[in-house]
Amino acid sequence: MNLPLGYLYSATYAGIRQVEKDDLALIVSGLPATAAAVFTRNRVQAAPVTLSRRHLKLSGGLAGAILANAGNANCATRTGSRVALAACKAAAKLLRIPVAQVLPASTGVIGVELEAAKIVDALPRLAAGLRPDRFDDVARAIMTTDLVPKTAFAGVKLRRGKIHIAGMTKGSGMIHPQMATTLGFVMTDAQIPAAALRAMLKRGVERSYNRLSVDGDTSTNDTLALLANGASGVRPDSKELAAVEEEIAGVMAALAQAIARDGEGATKFVTIDVAGAPTTGAATRMARAIANSPLVKTAIAGADPNWGRILSAAGNAGVAFDPWKTDVRMQGVLVCRGGLAAPFSEPELKARLAAPECEIRVTVRGKGKGSARFWTCDLTEGYIRINASYRT
Amino acid sequence: MNLPLGYLYSATYAGIRQVEKDDLALIVSGLPATAAAVFTRNRVQAAPVTLSRRHLKLSGGLAGAILANAGNANCATRTGSRVALAACKAAAKLLRIPVAQVLPASTGVIGVELEAAKIVDALPRLAAGLRPDRFDDVARAIMTTDLVPKTAFAGVKLRRGKIHIAGMTKGSGMIHPQMATTLGFVMTDAQIPAAALRAMLKRGVERSYNRLSVDGDTSTNDTLALLANGASGVRPDSKELAAVEEEIAGVMAALAQAIARDGEGATKFVTIDVAGAPTTGAATRMARAIANSPLVKTAIAGADPNWGRILSAAGNAGVAFDPWKTDVRMQGVLVCRGGLAAPFSEPELKARLAAPECEIRVTVRGKGKGSARFWTCDLTEGYIRINASYRT
Repeated sequence: MNLPLGYLYSATYAGIRQVEKDDLALIVSGLPATAAAVFTRNRVQAAPVTLSRRHLKLSGGLAGAILANAGNANCATRTGSRVALAACKAAAKLLRIPVAQVLPASTGVIGVELEAAKIVDALPRLAAGLRPDRFDDVARAIMTTDLVPKTAFAGVKLRRGKIHIAGMTKGSGMIHPQMATTLGFVMTDAQIPAAALRAMLKRGVERSYNRLSVDGDTSTNDTLALLANGASGVRPDSKELAAVEEEIAGVMAALAQAIARDGEGATKFVTIDVAGAPTTGAATRMARAIANSPLVKTAIAGADPNWGRILSAAGNAGVAFDPWKTDVRMQGVLVCRGGLAAPFSEPELKARLAAPECEIRVTVRGKGKGSARFWTCDLTEGYIRINASYRT
Repeated sequence: MNLPLGYLYSATYAGIRQVEKDDLALIVSGLPATAAAVFTRNRVQAAPVTLSRRHLKLSGGLAGAILANAGNANCATRTGSRVALAACKAAAKLLRIPVAQVLPASTGVIGVELEAAKIVDALPRLAAGLRPDRFDDVARAIMTTDLVPKTAFAGVKLRRGKIHIAGMTKGSGMIHPQMATTLGFVMTDAQIPAAALRAMLKRGVERSYNRLSVDGDTSTNDTLALLANGASGVRPDSKELAAVEEEIAGVMAALAQAIARDGEGATKFVTIDVAGAPTTGAATRMARAIANSPLVKTAIAGADPNWGRILSAAGNAGVAFDPWKTDVRMQGVLVCRGGLAAPFSEPELKARLAAPECEIRVTVRGKGKGSARFWTCDLTEGYIRINASYRT
């Protein structure tokens, strides 16, 4: 792993979650970084979401630190805004940066008061623990029901030198795209102006986090932040910027896929491809309808080549397409041709569907040029077990 | 149970489903009945849906028989239209009515050819078995993963005599409102012109089947038909028509609720009420978002008063409302007041949430007049078990 230059990481247990496991994390950039972020579109927004949005505006798109906690969403609480601001102020003071350059982020249970003192008291030791190589500690500290930390890395050799990208994310339930989903932090040491960074993030999200669904629920705290501190000393020229954007989008896509792979109770990672739809938007809606269908997801869990459910789910997307020109493939095997059963060996396909990676491909034959890829996971009894008892 | 006059019912095993259990059913009206029906809005529509729609048009809104089968959806099959038509023709010939007065309906697996011969061969004994009191046999024959048959009855005393209403429905998965959902047949012996009947059905569906969700999936075969044969000899006058409509809507609401009660794997029936939304449509969207949230539904399964998930689900409905003016009640207990945790006894509420009926009430305080009621069920491991293995 090739970490971007100029970032420091730290994590500690601040007593926010009940089990003694790091729950407070700090990412610091030595130089103020240009920063962009996208947030949940849920009407109910957590205090740190509101405050991060305000800070980005006040700072003109600069960030020196991300302060994140797990175990409490700091949402729908009486003291939410005050707590988020107090935490940012304390961090800013310790780090000697303007408070508007601290981006707060929280994840965890909704509606339980978060005590500012827990964060403020933990901050000195959190700051004292800052190291350039504690990236993974932060990725672990932001986990909730996640089984594994989720990180992705990339590097690009440009004319004037190499730049690095590192991303981390968390989440395995309450996952549905409406903007960003869950917490995600992507850092690069390239030098990228704030406006260009915002545009990159927006386009990248469309190809990554917005193509991901675990259970169709969008949380109140979703935040995806992209920081570029220029510590590599390399400012990509206008041509190179496209290559950098591609790598950043790649890191974001890898993070989004990691979430689906770790979907609550998931045993299988599912890639859904739709082609031949009237438009890209239509293809995305069809792919999303398939990804969100509990009947498709339970069939995948049962290794059942039940293509009727796939066709029916696509039919529920509100897209005008001709089912009689539609082919469905599972694991590359043609199971439905022109809306009708295609001959295939069921035991053989069932065996293939037992693999940990499943591919569903829906193709509408004709003139349509719209295509889209979507990621999800299967729906198992494990999802129910986790969510029938998460809070209590 | 007070069955409407002038209807005959029959059911038999035609070998369509693998287990030997009635799978073919016939409802016949001695007099041609005025008829109205609503169908799935899925882009993929089963052959009997297409044919029923055509028959209603050709007959000018008259029906003499409903021919329904379970075990095969007759959808996405090569011979679908031919099979549906051949079955209707054979029934029409036996019953000596025009073929356009036969409404076909199918439910079951998608994409498997349905053999016309099975239906045609079974029809003579099906017709021979027609009796006025075999209503329940038909309700049983159309079941798929249903655990119980679903019926509802009503009667209204009008100035000129009594009229009767009887409805049956099937369904416990792939349940989501976009129009009608699943199969439902409602018969009355009142005399109601076709146009009035259509208007009644449309308004009734809005208050019943369109307020129901089990898993957010809409099938390819959903059909809800309403027949009025006038056999009571009573033609409601324009004032009485409203009372009849109220009773018909009541029967449809009871049927819709029965589906949620029998939701696949469900252990609890959930009623969701939203009040104070900007409009009725907004209230319905909020209620539907709560009803469709797997996180809310798993929390109910776990008897967990996790109101944060309810507030968050409402926030995902795409409705502009103020979370800080929003109250949430579970089983009548105020759990969230103005977007914040309200004090309540958790053990006590957990005990109350163990009941088989749960009520969620979301109230936005302010000037909004929009309210809506929605029905759903909890999401349990049973749903997964049923659907990971339904087809194979």
